[in-house]
Amino acid sequence: MSDCIFCKIAAGQIGSFKVYEDDHVLAFLDIGPIRDGHTLLIPKHHCSRLEDCPPQALEPLMARLAQLAGAVQQAMEADGYNILCNSGRAAGQIVEHLHFHIIPRKTGDGVFKHWPSFQYPEGRALQVAEKIRQKLKK
Amino acid sequence: MSDCIFCKIAAGQIGSFKVYEDDHVLAFLDIGPIRDGHTLLIPKHHCSRLEDCPPQALEPLMARLAQLAGAVQQAMEADGYNILCNSGRAAGQIVEHLHFHIIPRKTGDGVFKHWPSFQYPEGRALQVAEKIRQKLKK
Repeated sequence: MSDCIFCKIAAGQIGSFKVYEDDHVLAFLDIGPIRDGHTLLIPKHHCSRLEDCPPQALEPLMARLAQLAGAVQQAMEADGYNILCNSGRAAGQIVEHLHFHIIPRKTGDGVFKHWPSFQYPEGRALQVAEKIRQKLKK
Repeated sequence: MSDCIFCKIAAGQIGSFKVYEDDHVLAFLDIGPIRDGHTLLIPKHHCSRLEDCPPQALEPLMARLAQLAGAVQQAMEADGYNILCNSGRAAGQIVEHLHFHIIPRKTGDGVFKHWPSFQYPEGRALQVAEKIRQKLKK
């Protein structure tokens, strides 16, 4: 898409700190990183969200994710990493071109420490699971 | 693994609110959800982290992720979703069996609003990208 910043980066029209590139995918540093080495993996084919991405673009992306995450962790001498894909503005997606964040983490670094979990009230989980199963059947 | 809670769930030895199951993967509700419909997707094959997962276990998992995320969003009438995979205790992984969180999100729900990004100092991004590229070559 002509007005998509990640399409422009993939086409080389905007510079980036590239980490990996092949015919299908590009990985480059997030310029507003949460941690040193915070990397983005994108398909070169424009799609906004995971469920919009055709298999021929999605498969090479998913196949590369594990290897890239391992390399980011090792390079940054990290103890782990978060993989994060925000889909939709409500979920924090800023650039509307599918991307996976790989964020290297060290023990006690204090990133993402807030995990606001709750407990389902009696009977609610059964209803929720059934709702999702129904959508999968369609 | 005999002491892995997700292996026990996959084997039916511990109950769960199942959303999807086939020969390779299982999806079920997180019992400590962040939002209604917060779902976990796991490979039935035990592996602790993404980079430890053999292709025959990883491929069916990755192939299912997009469809499942779409169904969770629709079922919960959400505006988007986060996909999150925490690898290593430093990254918030509690159960050491690979799992992807799918967290449905609504506009303004206030989850994960903290995004502590920074800017690389001059020259640092180039060094970091080179470090990661070196690890990918190995």
